[in-house]
Amino acid sequence: MTDRPALLIMQRHLAPLTPFLESRWTVYRFWEGPPVEAQAEIRALVVAGEFPLDKALIEQLPRLQLIACFTSGYDRIDVDWCRARGLPITHAPGVNHEDVADHALGLIIAARRQIVAGDRALRAGDWTADSKMITPSLHGQKVGVIGLGAIGDAVARRAAALRMTVHWWGPRDKPAAWPRAASLVELAKDSDILVVACKADDGNIGLISREVIEALGPQGLLVNVARGQLVDEDALIAALKDGRLGQAALDVFEDEPADVARWTDVPNTVLTPHTAGATTEAVQGMLMLLLQNIEAAFAGEPLKTPVP
Amino acid sequence: MTDRPALLIMQRHLAPLTPFLESRWTVYRFWEGPPVEAQAEIRALVVAGEFPLDKALIEQLPRLQLIACFTSGYDRIDVDWCRARGLPITHAPGVNHEDVADHALGLIIAARRQIVAGDRALRAGDWTADSKMITPSLHGQKVGVIGLGAIGDAVARRAAALRMTVHWWGPRDKPAAWPRAASLVELAKDSDILVVACKADDGNIGLISREVIEALGPQGLLVNVARGQLVDEDALIAALKDGRLGQAALDVFEDEPADVARWTDVPNTVLTPHTAGATTEAVQGMLMLLLQNIEAAFAGEPLKTPVP
Repeated sequence: MTDRPALLIMQRHLAPLTPFLESRWTVYRFWEGPPVEAQAEIRALVVAGEFPLDKALIEQLPRLQLIACFTSGYDRIDVDWCRARGLPITHAPGVNHEDVADHALGLIIAARRQIVAGDRALRAGDWTADSKMITPSLHGQKVGVIGLGAIGDAVARRAAALRMTVHWWGPRDKPAAWPRAASLVELAKDSDILVVACKADDGNIGLISREVIEALGPQGLLVNVARGQLVDEDALIAALKDGRLGQAALDVFEDEPADVARWTDVPNTVLTPHTAGATTEAVQGMLMLLLQNIEAAFAGEPLKTPVP
Repeated sequence: MTDRPALLIMQRHLAPLTPFLESRWTVYRFWEGPPVEAQAEIRALVVAGEFPLDKALIEQLPRLQLIACFTSGYDRIDVDWCRARGLPITHAPGVNHEDVADHALGLIIAARRQIVAGDRALRAGDWTADSKMITPSLHGQKVGVIGLGAIGDAVARRAAALRMTVHWWGPRDKPAAWPRAASLVELAKDSDILVVACKADDGNIGLISREVIEALGPQGLLVNVARGQLVDEDALIAALKDGRLGQAALDVFEDEPADVARWTDVPNTVLTPHTAGATTEAVQGMLMLLLQNIEAAFAGEPLKTPVP
């Protein structure tokens, strides 16, 4: 027992936050065992938005007053359920969208210009005097951006700077520098490269369906820097295996960490471990917002960045 | 014997040019054996500019009237020696500098944001629930461009579009959108990322010396999309091994194809097999110029793109 407010970090990969939180509050770590003796103390949960809330646990925490989401996305958090309990949620918007867009561009170049495959071939000794790897120019490739929010807009600007053509689709039209396709399937049909950059929610699971993947086609490249569940991953893998889709460059997966065995025999992929938004600078910005939101909640002041 | 003009392709990796050349001329391939019986026939050599000329062979070719260099660069071709013999050289300028710059940007993102290392770690099963790869943001990184020609300028524009700061150095000052450093060492000292984008010649072998590499330092990234001999490769490898240089991303090497064993134990590298300028579109453009130059030479007309 202590008179400092207590909080509980839920996901193990958030462990590096501990020292920053411990300097101000009492910190419990869920993976070290359920904090049965501290249940009456805990006033905030620190979570990552790509994991579902443990609702049964939350119901055991009488003093809980905040779900403090470290990330920008909060797609697996049941916002309505929290709202019904009067439990506010905060997150970290507007911090890492430019870094995510940098990573998306890096995935496009790495896949199209065979940077990952070239590095692998060179190290395997496959570069010989009579071999020459020829790759497609990015010039004039048509990039379809799904979701023209902060990330999508930043991807579009980068694609244009590299002499690619940009169009986009999202469920709601809005003023934009690039034309909007009539539908997602039309966008895919008319794209060489399709970049998933939209917010995930309960309503768009599997949005990138088999039909969309086949519309992108045998020369197409699918890039996902949003959330794994937006893509029908079984359909994606099947299409890559039999050549109905050309390439995929993925930073996010249906289940994370990704199951290596699932991807071993899938050709023409570049796979990164959900690092697009995790830069040193972005993490510092997210940490700052997390601390400010927890402090505001404990002081009874207005939250800095509540989920709308 | 034939009455069609004959030419000789020197390097084996240029073999894919054969069908395009054979439709118009008689083609010999050097790697199939020296063309002793055809010596009197050969009127043009088709070469890649990163290989030295076989001068002894050239002296055996009485009717030779053109060195047709397929590439833009002609750094290993002894221009003065050819000029003294009245032997013109053509090359393929202005075709692939934007593609080379795309690749350079791809190398920067792949190295800094750990796209190659992340892909490798994920496939090795190193992505676990309690691991999180954090990488530096590109935002505000200072890019030093060595040589602000067509490639360097295209790299600078891309770096600026990704929120990086640009400065440059070249032996001659010129009007530019970015500031010029006082010297190459000053440029390296003041850069997070150093991109080699200058032309190689006899005068700048080993330009990126141990001193320049150490000025770039333990957090620095060296990118080379120009020519391998511009960098003191032994000094580079030593600096990477003992941490005096942070990272290197290389598309070109002192000897090509690169010797895999030489790079096996060198940490923090991204290595591609000289693919920066070899896009389908650029190769088509280079082929077009090659054909036009050979035709002009055989017709006694002005060459399309002679080496100046």
